[in-house]
Amino acid sequence: MTVTSDQPTRSADTASPPFPSSPDQHLGSAATRTTLRVQNRMLAATRAFLTGRGFTELLPPIIGPVTDPGIRGSKQVDVDFYGHKYKLMTSAILYKQASLLAFAKIFYIAPNVRLEPIETAVTHRHLAEFHQIDVEIRDARREDAIALAEELVSFVVGEVVREMPGELDSLGRDRDAFREAVAGAFGRTTHREATADLVALGHPQDPGAEIDWEGEEILSAKASNPFFVVDYPKGSRGFYDRENTDNPGVLRNFDLIAPEGYGELASGSEREYDYATLVTRMRETGENPAKYGWYLDLARRGIPASSGFGIGLERFTRYVTGRTAAWEASAYPKLPGVVSA
Amino acid sequence: MTVTSDQPTRSADTASPPFPSSPDQHLGSAATRTTLRVQNRMLAATRAFLTGRGFTELLPPIIGPVTDPGIRGSKQVDVDFYGHKYKLMTSAILYKQASLLAFAKIFYIAPNVRLEPIETAVTHRHLAEFHQIDVEIRDARREDAIALAEELVSFVVGEVVREMPGELDSLGRDRDAFREAVAGAFGRTTHREATADLVALGHPQDPGAEIDWEGEEILSAKASNPFFVVDYPKGSRGFYDRENTDNPGVLRNFDLIAPEGYGELASGSEREYDYATLVTRMRETGENPAKYGWYLDLARRGIPASSGFGIGLERFTRYVTGRTAAWEASAYPKLPGVVSA
Repeated sequence: MTVTSDQPTRSADTASPPFPSSPDQHLGSAATRTTLRVQNRMLAATRAFLTGRGFTELLPPIIGPVTDPGIRGSKQVDVDFYGHKYKLMTSAILYKQASLLAFAKIFYIAPNVRLEPIETAVTHRHLAEFHQIDVEIRDARREDAIALAEELVSFVVGEVVREMPGELDSLGRDRDAFREAVAGAFGRTTHREATADLVALGHPQDPGAEIDWEGEEILSAKASNPFFVVDYPKGSRGFYDRENTDNPGVLRNFDLIAPEGYGELASGSEREYDYATLVTRMRETGENPAKYGWYLDLARRGIPASSGFGIGLERFTRYVTGRTAAWEASAYPKLPGVVSA
Repeated sequence: MTVTSDQPTRSADTASPPFPSSPDQHLGSAATRTTLRVQNRMLAATRAFLTGRGFTELLPPIIGPVTDPGIRGSKQVDVDFYGHKYKLMTSAILYKQASLLAFAKIFYIAPNVRLEPIETAVTHRHLAEFHQIDVEIRDARREDAIALAEELVSFVVGEVVREMPGELDSLGRDRDAFREAVAGAFGRTTHREATADLVALGHPQDPGAEIDWEGEEILSAKASNPFFVVDYPKGSRGFYDRENTDNPGVLRNFDLIAPEGYGELASGSEREYDYATLVTRMRETGENPAKYGWYLDLARRGIPASSGFGIGLERFTRYVTGRTAAWEASAYPKLPGVVSA
């Protein structure tokens, strides 16, 4: 059955499965094993796809003096590095930009830690520790990044549908749900259009703000194929998302939203790289440029132009395997505020 | 030229190359790019080898309430997880043991952070952030782990020698140096024998203690093929290295030492899994069992018997590429006590 807008299979109020009380309860479950084996195959397919396109995989940093400033109320984790204040990577975007000095096309399978607000522990989507398939392309435009993300997601989904039908069946995941995704042709909508849709559906959406996870889930539940939302307003995203010079106030960025209520899968953008603009954008977004030592030093000497994206691996796995919560796609899940293994 | 014990090509006092003052200086260097491409191939070969042997790759945890207690004066990094004291992984051994409840053979490419003493910044070998090829096998004996480590290292070295001769040449790495390693047949020596060798060479080595990095480098410089040191004394290693019941005071563990002065490549052991013995060993090694919450709870219910090892990826890459320092094999190197990118 192909899911249509009249037949959403999920909604934001699906009951959360009980979080395991011990690692053996989680790791000993057949569903966990199957989910992790599917994720394994997804990563192998990702590596095959990107390596075949000339990308070089690098091992990302775990700690460092700078990281993504974070969005949506998530907090960074401070680390004392021999008396200096380092951070755990919330996202290694700034390191991806620097790495384009070594290779024109790079990717990471990058672990990130974000202390999301405690109330997000029940969203099925937020993990305090998660991974991104993190891609960056020198001298690429946003449209190049969008096209690559579409091909990559389509390829990985197709690989699982072809190679692991038994695993999907055992998890109760309807393979027909991927008929459109395997063919590609993901839709595009703008933040402005998405805002209008949400308001029409009775969801309060500020046209100048990020779409919150409930809004993403509403849009997602209406869709039968992944789709891109482009052109987020300035102020909704970090300083590294490049502003459209032809359309000031609008960013050259995008999100990729899964269908069937699974919500956001990826975020990406054309990157800002001009030193003076970066400093201005940092100030506009409430960031202190003095805290971005090596990054701004490098920007003064020259950071390559680029576009890139990060796909949330556990969310992507959740969509492919049809599990209820993103934590079910992690071997050692960490929910915001919950002490576990 | 095959390196013999009369012709060591390196020694512990080789001048350290200057640490780069900026990420562009490091990432923009042709030697860095070549080294990272070789490392890439080494990881691909590792995945092919282990997957072909039925191992499942898992994504390791980055933070957690418990980690390896650490050795040789390195410090753990504390992390505030919603008011709870978590650690950055210094090694995910305890998580590897738990994961054998899901899969019989697992591996990680695991990032670790250890705040090594500042004076180790000049050893060419110590990084504050590094990676391990981390392998664990359910119901395996130490000898199984040793055999697998030998085959894996031999396979990976052979792959690079066969597939990347131009890269090795451009780095000035003598490919003939690997003639023995590619054939396998790594030697075995005991900690007792290694101690006697070191004392005979004028290096003070306590028969009841870990071999320090200078001692490892001396033994390494005399060798022309990687070799294993087995049977470290109790007290030199963590509580998770199993004691030999037939030979009390001696652990069922091993290190793998590279030839040519490159020093230690890997550590491994048969693991302790008995609850009462773990508690006793923790107390003997100065660890407070109360700090090992989920791990000891799980041990009470049952942790599988296993053996495993961790290969230091940057050290392994240094050996294969012939670079002077381990930091040259990291895209974003972090030396103990040195603030960098």
